[in-house]
Amino acid sequence: MAAPEPTERPDTPTDRTESFSDGVFAVAITLLVLDLGVGTVSRGGLASALGREWPHYAAFVVSFLTIGIIWINHHAMFVRIAHVDRTLVFLNLLLLMTVTAIPFPTRLLAGYLHEGPDERVAAAVYAGSFLVLSIAFSAVNTWSARRALVSEWFPAEQLRRQVRRGYIGLPVYAAAIGLAFASAVVSLVLCALIAVYYALPQRV
Amino acid sequence: MAAPEPTERPDTPTDRTESFSDGVFAVAITLLVLDLGVGTVSRGGLASALGREWPHYAAFVVSFLTIGIIWINHHAMFVRIAHVDRTLVFLNLLLLMTVTAIPFPTRLLAGYLHEGPDERVAAAVYAGSFLVLSIAFSAVNTWSARRALVSEWFPAEQLRRQVRRGYIGLPVYAAAIGLAFASAVVSLVLCALIAVYYALPQRV
Amino acid sequence: MAAPEPTERPDTPTDRTESFSDGVFAVAITLLVLDLGVGTVSRGGLASALGREWPHYAAFVVSFLTIGIIWINHHAMFVRIAHVDRTLVFLNLLLLMTVTAIPFPTRLLAGYLHEGPDERVAAAVYAGSFLVLSIAFSAVNTWSARRALVSEWFPAEQLRRQVRRGYIGLPVYAAAIGLAFASAVVSLVLCALIAVYYALPQRV
Amino acid sequence: MAAPEPTERPDTPTDRTESFSDGVFAVAITLLVLDLGVGTVSRGGLASALGREWPHYAAFVVSFLTIGIIWINHHAMFVRIAHVDRTLVFLNLLLLMTVTAIPFPTRLLAGYLHEGPDERVAAAVYAGSFLVLSIAFSAVNTWSARRALVSEWFPAEQLRRQVRRGYIGLPVYAAAIGLAFASAVVSLVLCALIAVYYALPQRV
Repeated sequence: MAAPEPTERPDTPTDRTESFSDGVFAVAITLLVLDLGVGTVSRGGLASALGREWPHYAAFVVSFLTIGIIWINHHAMFVRIAHVDRTLVFLNLLLLMTVTAIPFPTRLLAGYLHEGPDERVAAAVYAGSFLVLSIAFSAVNTWSARRALVSEWFPAEQLRRQVRRGYIGLPVYAAAIGLAFASAVVSLVLCALIAVYYALPQRV
Repeated sequence: MAAPEPTERPDTPTDRTESFSDGVFAVAITLLVLDLGVGTVSRGGLASALGREWPHYAAFVVSFLTIGIIWINHHAMFVRIAHVDRTLVFLNLLLLMTVTAIPFPTRLLAGYLHEGPDERVAAAVYAGSFLVLSIAFSAVNTWSARRALVSEWFPAEQLRRQVRRGYIGLPVYAAAIGLAFASAVVSLVLCALIAVYYALPQRV
Repeated sequence: MAAPEPTERPDTPTDRTESFSDGVFAVAITLLVLDLGVGTVSRGGLASALGREWPHYAAFVVSFLTIGIIWINHHAMFVRIAHVDRTLVFLNLLLLMTVTAIPFPTRLLAGYLHEGPDERVAAAVYAGSFLVLSIAFSAVNTWSARRALVSEWFPAEQLRRQVRRGYIGLPVYAAAIGLAFASAVVSLVLCALIAVYYALPQRV
Repeated sequence: MAAPEPTERPDTPTDRTESFSDGVFAVAITLLVLDLGVGTVSRGGLASALGREWPHYAAFVVSFLTIGIIWINHHAMFVRIAHVDRTLVFLNLLLLMTVTAIPFPTRLLAGYLHEGPDERVAAAVYAGSFLVLSIAFSAVNTWSARRALVSEWFPAEQLRRQVRRGYIGLPVYAAAIGLAFASAVVSLVLCALIAVYYALPQRV
């Protein structure tokens, strides 16, 4: 068989990048359950011990939904990507690193809420993690919007809006870091509002 | 290359939702092994130490088979789904959250069985987790039965029966929560019976 | 659009069963690293502390390769399976349960080797786990060999040999359980020999 | 239906090997987050406790990026592999074993950096792990370069360069092991430089 022309080399499809990303998202989101416990059951039996652990259960729900929403948007982004280049794969790797790290600041927040001044440090770390994550997401989003990587059928106008939408979270998360030192709760509410915003479908 | 018509945009296929769900199910079901241990080996050597840990081994088997049965039914449900919309992806995310949480109530039950009144609290939490899971499953099931998402070849009559079948567990799990405060064991037997019911193939 | 004939319903393909199985194998095989540690570093520094932990490193390698060999044979089995039925999916679930449990007897063996009579109990549990696993594997193997599930191109003679080959491990593992009470090491060597046998390609 | 000719048997495609590998990479890379903690928060509050833990955070980032870079190169290697044989599947299994083990030497290094002579042992184990990993990677690379397994369209010249490139790390990692006993830091810098080298795209 004759050596083929280099031009016959097909573009790298997105399937393995998607399957690897899905795997990382799936493991990261499922590891959150390892932080669910019952603490020490001393006074009042199991029922009240469970009650005292509520920040951990709340943190589990918030982190699960946040990682899930990021996955949904990652999913929506890859619908329009026809193939990947090495830079995109590398930027996606940085995004996945920030995603897998989320259980750590969440555990921090659950452990230090209502624990004096440390709750502000924990809230700032929490908001900071999401700022880094948003920067990574926007980097993937922006790079993948280059014409050479986008599927032909994807409307140019919608592409511009999708990229712009990713930038909105950046200044808000930066504000949430600053606000954390005034009030941990206000900072968290701000983080939750951004999550809700990204959970809503894009207006078409 | 010319900008294509927006109408050329293909429907979102189910493959990434399925692969992400498979990943979450696979991780959740495999994490159960982390709770297998031998406790403290003091009197009677390893053999009797292993014997004393039987509630954890039983809990491992029950939880594994329950998550497995849910996966089989999730699998059967997605056979008829031709493509997903954002609502379905979000409802499926809520379902996955309840699936990943299962190791926690199972661990609780294994730890508190035969531990006085706390075993009733543990059994109620256990049954309650499955009630929430069933609600989430039925929500995905009902939403995905909308004509626009179902494959053309799927018989309408079978669709109706599949959705109806999902509702049957709801009142039974609710009863199991109430019964837990009378007897933990009766509540558990009821939960096991529902699992067996859903393990059986649907009568066609 | 008219309701289609039930006969148009396609056979369930094997892809989701394979992807779920791959996920479970991948998680089970990777969780083994969580048991690698350095124990307490007291006398002789890190180097000798690492040296004392050799049974855990050996157990990691043995367990990893054993689960890997099972995966390779699972992979080879599914090459000839054209589609799955509910029974096959359920038997495969039982097989996966035994696979995910393997880290537990391995940890037991690593912890109790050279620990007096308990090492025999640990070796018997270890060999027993593989007997159960082999029974589950042969059940999937035998059921999937039914003509209705096998790909048309697969030679009938090779099918017979593949199924027969799966039975060979059963009496040997049973013997290994009995031998464990005479000598843990002889029992382990027997288990290793079966693993090597299944690692070898099938003679065609 | 007539028994088909044995020659009709299709070659084993690479998809399940890739999906299993992606799963193992995804789990291994995500398990790294389990080592992130805050240690004991005694003096100076949470902020300074977080600061003291920096070697663990650095180790998380380094390990994540290293496993990620290996995945990218694994991905690039499988683009040219048209189908797998049993030897390739087995060599790939050995490669995956070294990948899943990485969290252990990383944890070791994070724990023993700046801890007297033990940091040299830890650095040698760390560099040694990457030497073993490189040998496994080159084995897969070399075996998969055999004409029978390579896609027809892949240029022969590029194939030779890809294989040769894999060998470059071997002597450098061997040097890093020796250097570890002179200086842990120099050894680590060498390991990092190889990672950067393999992160760069291959010159075409």
